[in-house]
Amino acid sequence: MHIDIVSVLPELLESPLSHSIMKRAREKGLLQVEVHALRKWAVNSYGQVDDYQYGGGAGMVMMCEPLVNAIDELSVKAPFDEIIYLTPDGEKFNQKIANQLSLKSRLLLICGHYKGIDERVREHYITREISIGDYVLSGGELPAAVLVDAIGRLLPGVLNDETSALFDSFQDNLLAPPVYTRPADFRGWKVPEVLLSGDPKKIEDWRYEMALKRTSERRPDMAG
Amino acid sequence: MHIDIVSVLPELLESPLSHSIMKRAREKGLLQVEVHALRKWAVNSYGQVDDYQYGGGAGMVMMCEPLVNAIDELSVKAPFDEIIYLTPDGEKFNQKIANQLSLKSRLLLICGHYKGIDERVREHYITREISIGDYVLSGGELPAAVLVDAIGRLLPGVLNDETSALFDSFQDNLLAPPVYTRPADFRGWKVPEVLLSGDPKKIEDWRYEMALKRTSERRPDMAG
Repeated sequence: MHIDIVSVLPELLESPLSHSIMKRAREKGLLQVEVHALRKWAVNSYGQVDDYQYGGGAGMVMMCEPLVNAIDELSVKAPFDEIIYLTPDGEKFNQKIANQLSLKSRLLLICGHYKGIDERVREHYITREISIGDYVLSGGELPAAVLVDAIGRLLPGVLNDETSALFDSFQDNLLAPPVYTRPADFRGWKVPEVLLSGDPKKIEDWRYEMALKRTSERRPDMAG
Repeated sequence: MHIDIVSVLPELLESPLSHSIMKRAREKGLLQVEVHALRKWAVNSYGQVDDYQYGGGAGMVMMCEPLVNAIDELSVKAPFDEIIYLTPDGEKFNQKIANQLSLKSRLLLICGHYKGIDERVREHYITREISIGDYVLSGGELPAAVLVDAIGRLLPGVLNDETSALFDSFQDNLLAPPVYTRPADFRGWKVPEVLLSGDPKKIEDWRYEMALKRTSERRPDMAG
């Protein structure tokens, strides 16, 4: 899979994309991520990529031309399966969308900043608008890193058994059950006996029961 | 405001915390963020902070002792207002929680990895569990960066007019209206005439109408 990211702050993405599972995925050649500075497509030698908004008011708007030129140039090699704009008013990102996107081969992520991007780019070029949650951030860079992580770890071969995605929360519409490790007694707080029983069937039943309980307590909206 | 972050991958947070608005907030002395390597509190000289889970199964669990020692040591200077564990089964983060947390003075964020942290730490030390959305990530570092960004930009003095948070999506239970900048005609696609009218009342009405329309189309759950 190949993911291009266009941003006015490419440096912000350096460390999230060069550690952990993302690093492993890139090293194994399973995922290529390229971050492009939008200023490369600036409209003048000052590197301008934004301007005041029509109608007045505080906040700059990212201009059509640099974005459209970036999209056009990056699409030349091969067309994108999706051109995604990260925006708080987009479709809410979830595990299902992560699964869907992990089956694509080329994605372009556009990071917004300031007041956002000119509406005409959204109307005519963006194929999907995604929000990572109901909160406002300084820009689309962290959301882009979140997408890359959530999608990248689903690519076959990226995770090993230790980090297997199969039993993660959400994959089966259930939250994960509680987990415990040594010591069995920590400051008087003990691990549930069943987990020390050595009986795989009992343990499996307990985990399922706990997953159901946790889901119905914390996320009744997810159950059923 | 002071935020401590405990992580097994502190390097991952370097670039998100050293650019953009976070950088400005730190330079102005409005926000101090300290990232601590959990391995500092490892249980042995190999730097061990995780172990196999009781009951068997793939995936490591972050041990009680390093986490509790980290929490204890970091709490010595002054108690934390909240000790937050970033986990997909936590309370869903939103702008309201960001507003609440921006009024606190000391926060501790614990980043999970692998299968998560030992349940006993959650029961006895964590005061709040937060999820940034219904998807699974490699660890709690990106969620911690998201919290720091969402909260940090709300601190008085961090944003200037250009980036004012007042008219952001969610602050008034409405999505933001579309925005446009020059040129007024881009490849034949024109800016709505009202925005060129110079009539502040008309423009304000149009923006409000568009915000309502966008909210009811995209997020009927938010309206009313």
